[in-house]
Amino acid sequence: MAQGNHLQGCELCESPGGFVVVQTPLLRVLRIEDVSFPAFYRVVWQAHRAEFTDLSSSERSLCLEAVARVETVLREHLRPTKINLASLGNMVAHLHWHVIARFDWDSHFPQPIWGQAQREVEPPAVSRLALPLFELDRHVANAFG
Amino acid sequence: MAQGNHLQGCELCESPGGFVVVQTPLLRVLRIEDVSFPAFYRVVWQAHRAEFTDLSSSERSLCLEAVARVETVLREHLRPTKINLASLGNMVAHLHWHVIARFDWDSHFPQPIWGQAQREVEPPAVSRLALPLFELDRHVANAFG
Repeated sequence: MAQGNHLQGCELCESPGGFVVVQTPLLRVLRIEDVSFPAFYRVVWQAHRAEFTDLSSSERSLCLEAVARVETVLREHLRPTKINLASLGNMVAHLHWHVIARFDWDSHFPQPIWGQAQREVEPPAVSRLALPLFELDRHVANAFG
Repeated sequence: MAQGNHLQGCELCESPGGFVVVQTPLLRVLRIEDVSFPAFYRVVWQAHRAEFTDLSSSERSLCLEAVARVETVLREHLRPTKINLASLGNMVAHLHWHVIARFDWDSHFPQPIWGQAQREVEPPAVSRLALPLFELDRHVANAFG
């Protein structure tokens, strides 16, 4: 990558940051392993940028259209109660968008996933999804195919 | 508004939802009164839409450019540690984007504002901002002027 696009010591510059489902020159889509929220993807900008407005307007549009593609796949295949989108980066200030399918039965709903748990979920969340994660990954990958 | 754009009983269809700083035909920008996070704005889509992908691609672009404008004002005038962006809507499923200036001294940093408090903040957060909120509001309004 060009100089200025890589920050030494940045977790998302130096490692993938999750299971890579899509890889393009400008961004990658990861699936995050989370027992409580199995349908959890992240759109990571490849170059090191901290804030959304560190991207140009056309880059922002491209980045959010990638988020929208992931959202569309989650809605179509999982029929979640709600999609949650967020770009926080307080811990790792390298632009990444969380795209999370939320269900009214999940451990924290209607709280954000960072809030207080509302209930125990048994059997585990992953077994309640309409399809296995590897198939969901395939649909996400196809959305960028 | 046209039929289908208003949902009876929806909090953001039936009330402004905060202090209105910007009002356009398609969206409004609110400032949220939050003692811990005083530089907290919300971009609300005027028509009732639940998910980001319920907007067309050009509407999404317009909506996120509004988010970017607010972010730019917060960065320029407050020099926050980080900007947090989120569209959750688990409680009120009417599309709204949180735009929050975060500081390394704030009550929850580096946790999300929905997570666990990390410290007590005294004097109150608002007194630590580089300018009074009414001036910040004016800069946000001017960004849409």
